Amino acid sequence: MKPLLKEIQHNKLLWLLAFVPALFAAQRLAHDAHTLLFLLSVLAIVPLAALLSHATESVAAKTGDAVGGLLNATLGNLTELVIALTALRAGQYVLVKASLAGAIVTNTLFMLGASLLLGGLKYHVQEYNRMSARMQAGLLFLAIVALLIPSAVSQADSVAGIAFTQQLSVGLAVLLIVAYALSMFFSLKTHPEEFTSAESGEAGHASWPMGLALATLAGVTVLVALVSEIFVESVQKAAEAFGMSPAFVGFIIVALVGGAAEMASAFAGARKNRLDLSVGIALGSASQIALFVAPVLVLVSYVIGPTPMNLQFWPGAVVMMLIAAMTASMVTNTGRSAWFVGVLLLMVYTIFAMTLYLLPPRVA
Amino acid sequence: MKPLLKEIQHNKLLWLLAFVPALFAAQRLAHDAHTLLFLLSVLAIVPLAALLSHATESVAAKTGDAVGGLLNATLGNLTELVIALTALRAGQYVLVKASLAGAIVTNTLFMLGASLLLGGLKYHVQEYNRMSARMQAGLLFLAIVALLIPSAVSQADSVAGIAFTQQLSVGLAVLLIVAYALSMFFSLKTHPEEFTSAESGEAGHASWPMGLALATLAGVTVLVALVSEIFVESVQKAAEAFGMSPAFVGFIIVALVGGAAEMASAFAGARKNRLDLSVGIALGSASQIALFVAPVLVLVSYVIGPTPMNLQFWPGAVVMMLIAAMTASMVTNTGRSAWFVGVLLLMVYTIFAMTLYLLPPRVA
Amino acid sequence: MKPLLKEIQHNKLLWLLAFVPALFAAQRLAHDAHTLLFLLSVLAIVPLAALLSHATESVAAKTGDAVGGLLNATLGNLTELVIALTALRAGQYVLVKASLAGAIVTNTLFMLGASLLLGGLKYHVQEYNRMSARMQAGLLFLAIVALLIPSAVSQADSVAGIAFTQQLSVGLAVLLIVAYALSMFFSLKTHPEEFTSAESGEAGHASWPMGLALATLAGVTVLVALVSEIFVESVQKAAEAFGMSPAFVGFIIVALVGGAAEMASAFAGARKNRLDLSVGIALGSASQIALFVAPVLVLVSYVIGPTPMNLQFWPGAVVMMLIAAMTASMVTNTGRSAWFVGVLLLMVYTIFAMTLYLLPPRVA
Repeated sequence: MKPLLKEIQHNKLLWLLAFVPALFAAQRLAHDAHTLLFLLSVLAIVPLAALLSHATESVAAKTGDAVGGLLNATLGNLTELVIALTALRAGQYVLVKASLAGAIVTNTLFMLGASLLLGGLKYHVQEYNRMSARMQAGLLFLAIVALLIPSAVSQADSVAGIAFTQQLSVGLAVLLIVAYALSMFFSLKTHPEEFTSAESGEAGHASWPMGLALATLAGVTVLVALVSEIFVESVQKAAEAFGMSPAFVGFIIVALVGGAAEMASAFAGARKNRLDLSVGIALGSASQIALFVAPVLVLVSYVIGPTPMNLQFWPGAVVMMLIAAMTASMVTNTGRSAWFVGVLLLMVYTIFAMTLYLLPPRVA
Repeated sequence: MKPLLKEIQHNKLLWLLAFVPALFAAQRLAHDAHTLLFLLSVLAIVPLAALLSHATESVAAKTGDAVGGLLNATLGNLTELVIALTALRAGQYVLVKASLAGAIVTNTLFMLGASLLLGGLKYHVQEYNRMSARMQAGLLFLAIVALLIPSAVSQADSVAGIAFTQQLSVGLAVLLIVAYALSMFFSLKTHPEEFTSAESGEAGHASWPMGLALATLAGVTVLVALVSEIFVESVQKAAEAFGMSPAFVGFIIVALVGGAAEMASAFAGARKNRLDLSVGIALGSASQIALFVAPVLVLVSYVIGPTPMNLQFWPGAVVMMLIAAMTASMVTNTGRSAWFVGVLLLMVYTIFAMTLYLLPPRVA
Repeated sequence: MKPLLKEIQHNKLLWLLAFVPALFAAQRLAHDAHTLLFLLSVLAIVPLAALLSHATESVAAKTGDAVGGLLNATLGNLTELVIALTALRAGQYVLVKASLAGAIVTNTLFMLGASLLLGGLKYHVQEYNRMSARMQAGLLFLAIVALLIPSAVSQADSVAGIAFTQQLSVGLAVLLIVAYALSMFFSLKTHPEEFTSAESGEAGHASWPMGLALATLAGVTVLVALVSEIFVESVQKAAEAFGMSPAFVGFIIVALVGGAAEMASAFAGARKNRLDLSVGIALGSASQIALFVAPVLVLVSYVIGPTPMNLQFWPGAVVMMLIAAMTASMVTNTGRSAWFVGVLLLMVYTIFAMTLYLLPPRVA
């Protein structure tokens, strides 16, 4: 327990843990105060996500590269996964899809853009390993192609069309998971030397003993699941209260909340001139969601969802994901960055956020 | 006045100034000879644009980098801006949008392509500063994303959809102007060293005294405005006489006329193996129109237009702008060029021009 | 005749020539056994395509660079051209277009991807001439732009829309052939030094005497035409028997059969660490089909087809071609490759193949 307490003392973010019991108390006392519950659940998820990410890194550090990489990959977006699973079980497929697309776009444009801007405000020009950035951008592009195909091909809302989209989604999900496994084999086993600088970046934190890390993982995951349930229940009603469209909530709010912990790490890396770390977290996280979280949700929907989920996204979301992937690939082409590159990415993100905020509810 | 007369003697293009009084005379005498008025106004705009660009450079050279850059940027596409404002006041929004999209595509594909071809016919291989080309291509891509979003998102022709598109357009216009201002701050103040070679290219002309330059600016702008009025009035009728579709006129004819002066400079630069200058003028001009002229027109339409103008373009125009930006980004990736690269760009332009020429009027 | 027999002894693939007489016999005896005829015709086309490509190379080697390049270019995709002409004469325009789009996508993603994977399994990292790959990728992109414009612009199924698409297609066909001729002039005459390593790769085979090569060319072309006729007749019925959609047959099966000989060369090159050869064959073949075979078919359709053919493709095919060109351009950006790059390309191809396999017949 001592390292856990030490971490809490050390990391100001973890003081927010006080909001976890506050949230559960509020839910008992004021079941219908959706806006309050929404705000409390946001404040409670952020420190839990930070703890989860710290525990995952500790386990990964102990188990060696291969298993550690696998764990990191599987658990790295655990917060997003748990939130999405909760929404999936509630049958809120529009929210699930919006939060997947939103996480991809937010990580690619906002997390990367803000990292490059924050780093660029401190250092005149920053350099990073473009090989690693390119593989992540390539993976992301592949995944976006998989996600856009169902929307590009199926115009028909007929019975045959629906069955086709469903079969296709299952096939794509399997393909994406295979591609993801092969990409880890490539970066961890056959060509680790291409990714050196990004790997070494991970070694910053002091790691916990195995038992504590595993116990934290298990306990915090349960807490995240409980908090997510309140979050998913309250988010739509709270959004109405704030005048936000459902598309904006799923795409922007859920994505920012789910990725808060990773963002803290990515921004810290950029401020220390370790841009490899920031680029790795931002693009790695985006491609993980596209290649791992999204397909797992499709497959799991057969077991826990009211009906199977497919990979057909709202056309606007497809356009945004595609633009995000193209922008990332253009920007990381050189391995050099200055503050304005970050501004460009943030501008594209702001365009998307503004569009979703203004969108009349019926359209999305 | 002496330097002005000297310039007119020196620069053969300026002999065309004789067409300015000829045009005004013709308008008095033959008000309905649309084809004649159209041809005369084209011939009159070209030398006025050349004078305008020379006067702008002279003012910019005197006022130092920051103010000069701002002036150059604001006035660089003054001809296009004045033509578009004239069409805007006449409520011809289809023509305004076609000329904006056309100017972006024409500068990116035709001006850049012809420069690379002309340079390549003289020099075996030419090199240029790819960092500067990349920033321009990145800015252009950002702007095109902003311009494609309203078309990508709003399928609805409902009342809510129209209000949404209008709000979104205003928001995008503000964002684009902010991005433009930041890009100038970046290239002039914080990272000028990345753009050195393109800057030094500007120093070719002998500059005028301040008073003359400002007087020329004011006087010629009034003349351009007067000529534009005749041009906008006559262009549609003349086009019918020549069997051209309105889309072709706005996209190709207006864009070529409005950019004639810049094209002369860009081509001259390429023939002198100063490709940085050509690439800077072509891509810089395209991104200026997308990031500055287009948003200004949206905002100004609230004041002078019969109804507010939005940024929703005809889908074909969006596709063409997007392809132009992608082509520019692909081509400028290496910083090397040979004649065939120019041919590729011109081919894409010819494809677009031919498509618009053949387009049945009703569709655009 | 001796070198021909020697080649047959040496090249195991040519033992498949036995299937040519077997096919003609089977057609006499079992006119309605579509599945058998389909399988036999596939097995017969492969060795004929290999012979054709060997004879073309021999003629090209004798006639010097310029004429040889022209011949190679014209005859390089002779198999695809003859199959497509046969389908064109039969009025099967859907099959013609599917096989064109399929050949472009298959060469770009499958042939290139499998080459990079096969090479990468043997060599840790492979390098190749990126200038040549870039020109091919640039040409391919230009051609795809030409092929997507008719679909992007014409929404109308009106009479005016149909006439417009037809005129536009003829114009585009002429432009593409001009671009193709200029690209050959560039790579063979004005800038051959940029393509050296790819050229030297061609010199592997022992070449035949001119007379034998020309006789083989003529004779084998006639055989390919006869076999293609049986293939085109049987392929649709056989596909139904195998439960394949017509889109899958045209896009995947015909493309793989037509390109079998080139694939053998490309894969062999990659295994010998001569990736320039593989990339040149794969991208060169794809751009040849887009810039030469497709436009020739449009022009020829006025003479031999029941009605003129246009270049308007099924939107799904346009998306796939565009993604293929973008993927190729992203991947060949660096001139370096490892096995995972091949996997990425093959994954995108598998996504397309799976989509087409599952597609309900009515949609395509």
